[in-house]
Amino acid sequence: MNSSGLKKLVIFGVGLIGGSLALALRRSIQNLHIVGIDRNADSLQTAIDLGVIDEMNPPAQLAMQDADIIIIAAPVAQTPNILKSIAPHLGPNTVITDVGSTKSDVIDYAAAILGDQFTQFVPGHPIAGAEKSGVTAARADLFDGKNIVLTPTEKTTPESSCKVSEMWKQAGARVTEMSAGHHDEIFAAVSHLPHLLAFALVDDLASRPNAEELFAFAAGGFRDFSRIAGSSPEMWRDISLANREALLSEIDAYQASLQKLRDLLEQRDAQGLRDMFENASQKRNAWGAILTNKPRQA
Amino acid sequence: MNSSGLKKLVIFGVGLIGGSLALALRRSIQNLHIVGIDRNADSLQTAIDLGVIDEMNPPAQLAMQDADIIIIAAPVAQTPNILKSIAPHLGPNTVITDVGSTKSDVIDYAAAILGDQFTQFVPGHPIAGAEKSGVTAARADLFDGKNIVLTPTEKTTPESSCKVSEMWKQAGARVTEMSAGHHDEIFAAVSHLPHLLAFALVDDLASRPNAEELFAFAAGGFRDFSRIAGSSPEMWRDISLANREALLSEIDAYQASLQKLRDLLEQRDAQGLRDMFENASQKRNAWGAILTNKPRQA
Repeated sequence: MNSSGLKKLVIFGVGLIGGSLALALRRSIQNLHIVGIDRNADSLQTAIDLGVIDEMNPPAQLAMQDADIIIIAAPVAQTPNILKSIAPHLGPNTVITDVGSTKSDVIDYAAAILGDQFTQFVPGHPIAGAEKSGVTAARADLFDGKNIVLTPTEKTTPESSCKVSEMWKQAGARVTEMSAGHHDEIFAAVSHLPHLLAFALVDDLASRPNAEELFAFAAGGFRDFSRIAGSSPEMWRDISLANREALLSEIDAYQASLQKLRDLLEQRDAQGLRDMFENASQKRNAWGAILTNKPRQA
Repeated sequence: MNSSGLKKLVIFGVGLIGGSLALALRRSIQNLHIVGIDRNADSLQTAIDLGVIDEMNPPAQLAMQDADIIIIAAPVAQTPNILKSIAPHLGPNTVITDVGSTKSDVIDYAAAILGDQFTQFVPGHPIAGAEKSGVTAARADLFDGKNIVLTPTEKTTPESSCKVSEMWKQAGARVTEMSAGHHDEIFAAVSHLPHLLAFALVDDLASRPNAEELFAFAAGGFRDFSRIAGSSPEMWRDISLANREALLSEIDAYQASLQKLRDLLEQRDAQGLRDMFENASQKRNAWGAILTNKPRQA
């Protein structure tokens, strides 16, 4: 009944990401039926009241029936159980995708749980977010111009990838495909490592006898640097463990970079320090200039 | 002619900090005569046009004559030469202060250059700033509610400290006194170290063969974490070298904290990781909540 062929969508976890995807798709797809499944029934009722979803927590078999795409947007730790609840009812024309920050681990779970139907699973990661969470923070424009990375495996059917890719494009996003291993390496470097570096600094300072005095004099530079250290401990424990190998390599590379800086300082190498700061400063500002011309990404 | 007794102020370096101090004091002090001295005559003319200063670049002897307070707000590397230009003309009732981010180094310069008149020098550091620099970015409210740290030495006369302290209070700031060594340790931890950590990360990523791809997928967390890596390479070279001892200790403490995190990850210690992230996250969010109730500090 609509040009995309997308008629029924099932969203596991109707929060910021799941809810925003629903709102984004409603902008361009008429008569799209959206089913929400969530542990939190109050939140689902809010999602219905806000017009984000049409139906909440139906029996699993009914929910999956004739679904075009099932999106897993719940906290990553729930993914294996959600996959298990989906597997017995998964029809041959339904595609499953997810939105987790790490991809190799999800692929391992899906391969083990879905068996022959693993060909219908398209791992995904939208690079978008916001300060607030929950369905009340959902926005139809959250993905406009944002990157979505899909990491289909050798077994994923091209039809499945295509369906998920089309859905994200209709939600306003730009889709990039790469291998799960490459995805996990990139995000270890530009997202997971910075989070760990910020956690390590705040943990260090907060554990000192004069922590209160230190925080009293911390200002704007510290505020921005450490913002990500305020992130969910459970979520980052899970991400760290899920992307352990790549992250260990990144920590090693970072320690070498920091040691290089320490050596320059120890040796009072003014030129060496300036060169290193200059390289970083130029690249950061050039990137920042590009970023300010794009929609804000969180 | 006014209650504070402040009648003539000389500002070396009329940029964001020097200009904002002038504007802040003009709010509460009538008939304050402000002399601006700067290498950049165009910028000084702008400062006159904006009503920030009354007089620009007079001969040194005339500038210092009857000055109550001389503020050095030029780039820190110029401080020794500015002190040398002041010394021959410094009257017995004039007090000198500065706004540098490190204090032990400035004290060493001032002691060597000012000789007997070192008693009239009150080292200072306003913890305030803004994204933009230059006198056109100056704002009368820049210091409202902000911390100003003064680090008088054993030789500084109480009258001198008192005069500078009163000036900052009239500019809207909260004044704290501590030793220069203690100041430098605090700011090594909460400001200088975070800058070096951000420089080290961006330098590391920018030096890789796939740097362009990495930056293409970097998002909001990276943006905030790395913002301070866009800071002036020259300024941070100077700050790093000026606060070398304290900063080396901080890098060592940080490396130990990061190594602890790496060990937990290596050992797949989920509980240990969660505890470390939780400690950081709680402290960061508690501090952030206090900060949002205060004026923005940069």
